[in-house]
Amino acid sequence: MSAMPLDSDQALGCFAELVAAGTPAPGGGSVAAHSGMMAAALGQMVCNLTIGKPKFADREPRMTELRDELERLGRRLRELIAEDAASFEAVLAAYRLPKENDDQKAERAQAIQTAIGVAVSVPLETAERSFEVLELLREIAVGGNPNAISDVAVGSQLAEVAIKAAGYNVAANLGTMSDVNKSREADERMKTLVEQAKTIAAEVAAKVG
Amino acid sequence: MSAMPLDSDQALGCFAELVAAGTPAPGGGSVAAHSGMMAAALGQMVCNLTIGKPKFADREPRMTELRDELERLGRRLRELIAEDAASFEAVLAAYRLPKENDDQKAERAQAIQTAIGVAVSVPLETAERSFEVLELLREIAVGGNPNAISDVAVGSQLAEVAIKAAGYNVAANLGTMSDVNKSREADERMKTLVEQAKTIAAEVAAKVG
Repeated sequence: MSAMPLDSDQALGCFAELVAAGTPAPGGGSVAAHSGMMAAALGQMVCNLTIGKPKFADREPRMTELRDELERLGRRLRELIAEDAASFEAVLAAYRLPKENDDQKAERAQAIQTAIGVAVSVPLETAERSFEVLELLREIAVGGNPNAISDVAVGSQLAEVAIKAAGYNVAANLGTMSDVNKSREADERMKTLVEQAKTIAAEVAAKVG
Repeated sequence: MSAMPLDSDQALGCFAELVAAGTPAPGGGSVAAHSGMMAAALGQMVCNLTIGKPKFADREPRMTELRDELERLGRRLRELIAEDAASFEAVLAAYRLPKENDDQKAERAQAIQTAIGVAVSVPLETAERSFEVLELLREIAVGGNPNAISDVAVGSQLAEVAIKAAGYNVAANLGTMSDVNKSREADERMKTLVEQAKTIAAEVAAKVG
């Protein structure tokens, strides 16, 4: 394949370096999406280790579907890494708007609410997509090549971390949201996702011998 | 900084693509080391968000030490990503050695034991280094910029996943190890690390508001 070799600094270190730098973004929210992407990659690997093996021939059509779906989710999560960092910066930019008269104050308040809306919806989507990855991993834990069950478990745990981490970013912004219904809805949805993710990840981990 | 931009495919996608491919390595073991590296990066970020702020001036010397130590651990974990994949391939290569006569059989058995020794020591080191990262994150959760506490929690959870994931790879190889004492020692050490990591990660997560 044409991918970069594993010991390449560029392949491995750049995102970590961007995180390590003394700027708040990319931070936990981008790392959440990145963890979801890695979970999807492990799932794809296990599908690929199942496809083409005569003894799993009957499962091949479904494993191919799962792999393609994980690839799609991984691609979206990869985009969410950058979207999370951008949404954080947009909130800071809104707070920096001038507030010297009533018009400016109203405009600034509106800009803050718009930016906060995105800063909630981005990690919420990261959590939703990572949860979809986790549900596919649960199916792969049953139908995939059993030699790779520990890889499915690692993927499930990373998807769970992605969901919890995204939840921190949702929660951090809800207090500033003026739309109380939307805020409560996001809060309840995140709680459900975190709870169900914990159950599924534990279920998959229990399958490792 | 000179790092690659966040939306660059090379910075984000290459490692995930190598994982997703239908080869067993890089797999869960390399992803373990990668997760430990990301945990270290989040810790470095929080140190950097603490250093240089007048209100945390008294903590600056210690935060600088913690950041430098995390950078060192992150660098080693980055190396372990590739070492894990190589150690897996070395085990496969040893099994593929000829076994047509007694000399060849003895040589092959010896080569397998040598390769298995490395395939245990690499994930064990991944777990040890990730545990060191986790212990530093625990300290940062107390002394670091409290605005970034959720980033410390995400890092702690990733370090915990790294340790559990490395543990799967240690366990997978112990059955083949002929040195029973070394095998038992590795097994006990891993159990301790997994248990303590769970406690510390939960302790840090409890600090998020």
